[in-house]
Amino acid sequence: MAGKKKALVAARTLKGFQDFLPGDALMRAEVIRRIQGVFELYGYSPVETPALEHLDVLLGAGGEEANKELFRLESPEEEPIALRFDLTVPFARLMAQYPEQIKAPFRRYAMGPVWRADKPGPGRFRQFTQVDIDAAGAATVSVDGEVVAVMCAVMAALDVPDYLVLINNRKLIDALLSDCGIDDPSRQKHVLRVIDKLAKVGLDNIRKELGGGRIDDSGDPIPGVGLNEDVIERLLTFIDISGADRRAVIAAMGEALTDTKLAQEALAEMTELAEALEALGVSEEHARFDPSLARGLDYYTGPVFEMILPQAREFGTVMGGGRYNQLVERFMKQPIPCTGMSVGLDRLLAALRHLGLVEAGKTAVQALVVTMGRVAKADTLKVARELREAGIRCEVFFASKKKMQMGNQLSHADHYGIPVAVIIGEDEIAQGVVSVKDLDAGKAGREDIEDRDAYREAGKTGQVTVSREEMVATVLGLLER
Amino acid sequence: MAGKKKALVAARTLKGFQDFLPGDALMRAEVIRRIQGVFELYGYSPVETPALEHLDVLLGAGGEEANKELFRLESPEEEPIALRFDLTVPFARLMAQYPEQIKAPFRRYAMGPVWRADKPGPGRFRQFTQVDIDAAGAATVSVDGEVVAVMCAVMAALDVPDYLVLINNRKLIDALLSDCGIDDPSRQKHVLRVIDKLAKVGLDNIRKELGGGRIDDSGDPIPGVGLNEDVIERLLTFIDISGADRRAVIAAMGEALTDTKLAQEALAEMTELAEALEALGVSEEHARFDPSLARGLDYYTGPVFEMILPQAREFGTVMGGGRYNQLVERFMKQPIPCTGMSVGLDRLLAALRHLGLVEAGKTAVQALVVTMGRVAKADTLKVARELREAGIRCEVFFASKKKMQMGNQLSHADHYGIPVAVIIGEDEIAQGVVSVKDLDAGKAGREDIEDRDAYREAGKTGQVTVSREEMVATVLGLLER
Repeated sequence: MAGKKKALVAARTLKGFQDFLPGDALMRAEVIRRIQGVFELYGYSPVETPALEHLDVLLGAGGEEANKELFRLESPEEEPIALRFDLTVPFARLMAQYPEQIKAPFRRYAMGPVWRADKPGPGRFRQFTQVDIDAAGAATVSVDGEVVAVMCAVMAALDVPDYLVLINNRKLIDALLSDCGIDDPSRQKHVLRVIDKLAKVGLDNIRKELGGGRIDDSGDPIPGVGLNEDVIERLLTFIDISGADRRAVIAAMGEALTDTKLAQEALAEMTELAEALEALGVSEEHARFDPSLARGLDYYTGPVFEMILPQAREFGTVMGGGRYNQLVERFMKQPIPCTGMSVGLDRLLAALRHLGLVEAGKTAVQALVVTMGRVAKADTLKVARELREAGIRCEVFFASKKKMQMGNQLSHADHYGIPVAVIIGEDEIAQGVVSVKDLDAGKAGREDIEDRDAYREAGKTGQVTVSREEMVATVLGLLER
Repeated sequence: MAGKKKALVAARTLKGFQDFLPGDALMRAEVIRRIQGVFELYGYSPVETPALEHLDVLLGAGGEEANKELFRLESPEEEPIALRFDLTVPFARLMAQYPEQIKAPFRRYAMGPVWRADKPGPGRFRQFTQVDIDAAGAATVSVDGEVVAVMCAVMAALDVPDYLVLINNRKLIDALLSDCGIDDPSRQKHVLRVIDKLAKVGLDNIRKELGGGRIDDSGDPIPGVGLNEDVIERLLTFIDISGADRRAVIAAMGEALTDTKLAQEALAEMTELAEALEALGVSEEHARFDPSLARGLDYYTGPVFEMILPQAREFGTVMGGGRYNQLVERFMKQPIPCTGMSVGLDRLLAALRHLGLVEAGKTAVQALVVTMGRVAKADTLKVARELREAGIRCEVFFASKKKMQMGNQLSHADHYGIPVAVIIGEDEIAQGVVSVKDLDAGKAGREDIEDRDAYREAGKTGQVTVSREEMVATVLGLLER
């Protein structure tokens, strides 16, 4: 194989897909670890489902757009199958499939890749990671309040100071549309799509799109819904209600809606939700009622929520969710009310990175064993073994002979950000000593004059020679700083 | 949607695919966490690549069988793509794609699902999890020794006492086949396939398959390779060499091979490998040279290794790997020698479970907040909040009204194995107290008479009423036991 001249295969990643090299992968793992900690604190347990599902399990569950974006293929038995587009539909499948093992109420978290054959763009990928919680058998919207509390607790665990959960209720929207006499489902969806753009295009443009339409910035015509003036005003008055005071927003919404049974139910849910948020200590700074919030997916039936980062609003929704009381009914007769939310990990990390709130890690490796001249490989491995037995994460440098110069080894440590080098040569091995080099000392020393004592202690170049017995303690000492 | 009578979608998992409910998912997460710890201790850093790759990246890299087992589909741009069948080929792609960011030597670990459209069977799945390490730019077989040491360290980290790594070298097999005059590649592969079955069918059957063929237990004829007696004896003498003493095995192999350059190189590699294993403290009890080991994948070029569990040999290989010096050359001109290994997580866990060495977890939840009668939901949530603020993983029971009886709530805790219940009613809230119930006490009390003091302390039924201020300390006290 080596000798033959074969055409090379181009090494490339699929369009819309990403590789994560160690710095990013370490950062992602740490973020996931913290999110997991929050989920478990709130009583959620892990569940895993496969990447592939029977097509009928996925098809139609998320609406037209989700259907179109499925990556479809065939099983070896030639059944139509597809890659999952979210973790919620497989969860609904699970609830119907394991009635003996999984008894409601059941809180589960899941994390993993999902696939959508979407148009890739900045922060939009065809494979992206979702990190979800869902609560099944959660009949009351207090559980929705708890889900919002989890969203906020995740941000606290990630040390993000500024975030905002917008909360609405599909029942409020239904009551509003009913008040306006908009009963046709496709017309209802059109109205929802328009009001969902409020934050993006502003009230004036929304007004035009609800009426006769408008011309957008690029000169393209956007057809309108064709509602009359009165109806438009009624809609706009409602979706324009805003404010941090959740009780005041509920009161204003009550004013704006006709007093029907549906409106009463929707407002009672929002009141219970407000009480739950207060009990859970979710401040009005971090979670607000916003009557303009609609959410894209078809399966929501009650409260819906989205988190945005006010300092990085252009990244859009970084978490989203809501109540979906009828999804499990696709699979079984018994209805199981559910609510939950999903963290769009890739988008959240892109936004946090933009804000300087996370940075790529460097390496998990704490020490590199470097050799000078002719050292028996077994001796090198023994040094590494001693370090590892003390719990020090340690790498041994091995390369072809011409790449074994010490400079090359140290620049390897520098490239990957390994903080300590343990250097051995034939003499060191014979004398039972090693040189321990603080690879950060060079840089730190120049910047930080105050740290002189420690500096001198470690030698002028941050390098000391110690006995083999002292090696572990010396390395640990450097790592502690 | 709820009102309409739609046909139900059958809730089922694809053939050869698995769902992991919380008990299993918790166990898997713990096992992965320990394996990751070992990988990092040996200087490996995490990398993630996507599930899908361009077809040409995967096709032909693993040999005919891997090609046949690919799950193929099309990208939205109508390019042929496929789900990865291992983590090694994407790693080779990575090494060629990021020469600036990834400089050899480079040790990376990866974990995630891979897909093979194989025949499912006990312990064989179409989606299974691999947990891999690979070292690139590792020119010398001391690194292979380190890989074997990692395999053993993983088993130690999982508290598995009895495991065995079998080690061979493709160069030894090449030298042997060359000695026997077997030069035709397809004939070579046939011979390898036959000797790979040694452990399964025994020496006598191997002898027949290398010659004229045999009839298997089911009466089916197995065609033979058609070698002559002398050649068969030569092959069998070689692959029958065995023993715990690695140096003795090397000597015996040297005796059995013609003294060619290839044989010398192969034996020198095995000697270096033996030295590395000694330096790393890998005992002969846990790692042996076995001249009959071949390994299925085409890309190996030097040492190969497989781990079996002698007490659960029927589960086959639970980890496997080897050196593959030419895989990166599919993507770039510069050769990058690599070695690595893969843990077949699903098979390993199946075997460990069979041996009683792992068991499914129950739940991560430590306390359930249970309500009696009419308690305001906000009050329930406040109790949970106090527990969480103390780091107690806690779930709140909410269900439809008719399912809120206390018996139902306690049987929920019992079903999921939640150890502590914090019980509140209207009176408790008014008086500022809670009841804390040790849900293990009932069972433990009956079995374990010695623990009486602690038992009495917690009350006869394991239930105590304490002030709200004492709640957290009381729960923590129970959890500590």
